[in-house]
Amino acid sequence: MIVHPQSMHFADALPLQSGATLRDYRLSYETYGQLNADQSNAVLICHALNASHHVAGVYAGQNKSEGWWDNMIGPGKPLDTNHFFVIGVNNLGSCFGSTGPMHTDPDTGRVYGADFPVVTVEDWVNAQARLLDALGIQTLAAVMGGSLGGMQTLSWALQYPQRVRHAVVIASAPNLTAENIAFNEVARRAIQTDPDFHGGHFYQHCTIPKRGLRIARMIGHITYLSDDVMNAKFGRLLIAEASAMDAAAPGRPKQGTAPPGLRPAAPSLPAQTGTGQRALASGIGRSSAVREATSVGAYLYSTLEAEFQIEGYLRYQGDKFAEYFDANTYLLITRALDYFDPARAYGGNLSRALARATAKFLLVSFSTDWRFAPARSREIVKALLDNQRDVSYAEIDAPHGHDAFLLDDTRYMSVISSYFKSISDGLEVRA
Amino acid sequence: MIVHPQSMHFADALPLQSGATLRDYRLSYETYGQLNADQSNAVLICHALNASHHVAGVYAGQNKSEGWWDNMIGPGKPLDTNHFFVIGVNNLGSCFGSTGPMHTDPDTGRVYGADFPVVTVEDWVNAQARLLDALGIQTLAAVMGGSLGGMQTLSWALQYPQRVRHAVVIASAPNLTAENIAFNEVARRAIQTDPDFHGGHFYQHCTIPKRGLRIARMIGHITYLSDDVMNAKFGRLLIAEASAMDAAAPGRPKQGTAPPGLRPAAPSLPAQTGTGQRALASGIGRSSAVREATSVGAYLYSTLEAEFQIEGYLRYQGDKFAEYFDANTYLLITRALDYFDPARAYGGNLSRALARATAKFLLVSFSTDWRFAPARSREIVKALLDNQRDVSYAEIDAPHGHDAFLLDDTRYMSVISSYFKSISDGLEVRA
Repeated sequence: MIVHPQSMHFADALPLQSGATLRDYRLSYETYGQLNADQSNAVLICHALNASHHVAGVYAGQNKSEGWWDNMIGPGKPLDTNHFFVIGVNNLGSCFGSTGPMHTDPDTGRVYGADFPVVTVEDWVNAQARLLDALGIQTLAAVMGGSLGGMQTLSWALQYPQRVRHAVVIASAPNLTAENIAFNEVARRAIQTDPDFHGGHFYQHCTIPKRGLRIARMIGHITYLSDDVMNAKFGRLLIAEASAMDAAAPGRPKQGTAPPGLRPAAPSLPAQTGTGQRALASGIGRSSAVREATSVGAYLYSTLEAEFQIEGYLRYQGDKFAEYFDANTYLLITRALDYFDPARAYGGNLSRALARATAKFLLVSFSTDWRFAPARSREIVKALLDNQRDVSYAEIDAPHGHDAFLLDDTRYMSVISSYFKSISDGLEVRA
Repeated sequence: MIVHPQSMHFADALPLQSGATLRDYRLSYETYGQLNADQSNAVLICHALNASHHVAGVYAGQNKSEGWWDNMIGPGKPLDTNHFFVIGVNNLGSCFGSTGPMHTDPDTGRVYGADFPVVTVEDWVNAQARLLDALGIQTLAAVMGGSLGGMQTLSWALQYPQRVRHAVVIASAPNLTAENIAFNEVARRAIQTDPDFHGGHFYQHCTIPKRGLRIARMIGHITYLSDDVMNAKFGRLLIAEASAMDAAAPGRPKQGTAPPGLRPAAPSLPAQTGTGQRALASGIGRSSAVREATSVGAYLYSTLEAEFQIEGYLRYQGDKFAEYFDANTYLLITRALDYFDPARAYGGNLSRALARATAKFLLVSFSTDWRFAPARSREIVKALLDNQRDVSYAEIDAPHGHDAFLLDDTRYMSVISSYFKSISDGLEVRA
């Protein structure tokens, strides 16, 4: 499926939850499949932390440019673009095309930098709604997203209940826990205290706070994976032991070009939320074989050198991320996560907060996801049931932690596939 | 109990596991109680990450100078110094008195800095054994430690099986998991990539890599606490909401002087491994009361300001740590944690590795400790039972995460108290 990124300009000012206003802005987006005659088959995909509008398909002439949810969305895939018109949209504040901190503030003529206003999940949803207006879509067959994308999905059902028939909320939560916020805060402090950050105005200093971005990404990666998958993939294996394995099997990626034991991940548009996820999924269980095949390597006895494979992996992921991601965007997006809390206006009562939502819901969680644990999804399920809403819930037993929402898993894919099949069957009956 | 720090010089070179040698060195230590006539009542305490030889008692004229395990050790306490002669020793590489990176390398006449050799748990135990030799103690009634201190305790039982009658291993593990190593690595990278680190030779540049130390400490704090205790203590409360509470109850510590809701922690020698632990313990359950007492505060909508109380707490802990802890010491101690793995020389077979240990063992773990989970203690228990060793094991249901080993908990204290009571009863019968 060859796809093309598009962009739309919005000249009307967007009032933000903070009280600030975005005078005008652009949104990057892509669409897959065909909108049907009565505009009833549109599905909006909301992205998570570091993803983009490039959700599915590939760009012409660009190998390995698959969208971040290409395993999920496309012709014949669980969200089947033979039946649905799917829209991917890049959020405000991002660094992948929509108006963000690296663009020029029309009020000052200077790059926004740290002055880009704080945007919330609710603001994103409002901006997305205007895009749908422009595309002539009044009602969505479904909104779907994982993690932060799931928060946007939930917010859609609350802000525009009449425009959402189905809400598919995956690996998400009704708000962040103190621990979630804590991890975000450490990542932000690493960026903000990097001397190259210059209070967020690093563009004009021609610097990039790469040190901070690397640390932020390393922290993120730890929370995306489960302890189990880390032990299965890396365990306590040394980099020296991977090198010994390389000598025995020269076809494996070499040190320095890719993390030990992982295929080189080279998306032309780096739009994945989590890790080198497909490589990770296929690699589970391999490390024990490595353990058997190699003798015990000697420690380097160094505090500076990467000694264990997990260290090489994290450094590689940090380096890669610092090359393409914007520091101000990272701050904005993690803050949007922190602030999301629909129950807040209802004294913490999620059931009362969700009373406005009239969509049918599918919630999915993953057993080893400790970032957005199944219990958090069950809070949403309970609050919806308290309101007698139509809710389906699947808790998938998967080893991959939070990253599982991006990975192939037969049961997970079946759940999504069946759910959208029932929606498309309904569309056909109605048509 | 008024105590006095002591220091001993060792002129004989210490060969290290890495192959390097420490030409001469000093160890700081303290003792509590009296050594009995047959030298049979000595108990060695091994410290964890950022603790020291100041385990119990207070220094004359210094208020709030309690040792880091003062709740555990002293006259009439679980480890009763009316019966036992207790020794606290500061490890090599530390920044609290024993020879470390900020001291002068006798071979070069320059400050060690990054050239201080990597020391391991095994090296520490060898150095501790020489201290005992010098004190005239051949056999220890017990070795006891929590976390990294538990690893030293386990190593004592393996390196000097004839010198250890009892080993008390608390909240520990037979090695670090990939996730444990990952957290250590991120903390180390934050320090090493701080421009003020200067490759570990920051002393001669008159800088301190405080940015990195702050990040390292913030990461550490997240892993010391449980998700439960963070939610109970901080939840999603805003700093603004704490301020509103301050106005209503002016006796509480003010913003900027202490983390919201915590008493000002002001030890003259900062020797605690974990957090402001006693304050945390007593504060659990308070936040819900705060929630009721205050109205919902307005968000600041800032990525830079600390917005949530958990953020203020972490920043405060990071700032405090950066004022007193040495960056090179942090690197050395986390590396010692990474490297500890007695099963490594036995192909990963812990049962074979522990065959040498002849001591009687008490292991204690805490239900919400996700840094060193109960399952890791059970691995040690199983390996000891495989060797028909005398093992007691207590899994304490406590909400405080890894920090629990430093806190007062009735069941925990009872277990330790009973165990040492049975040892002292045995000593008296023998005498």
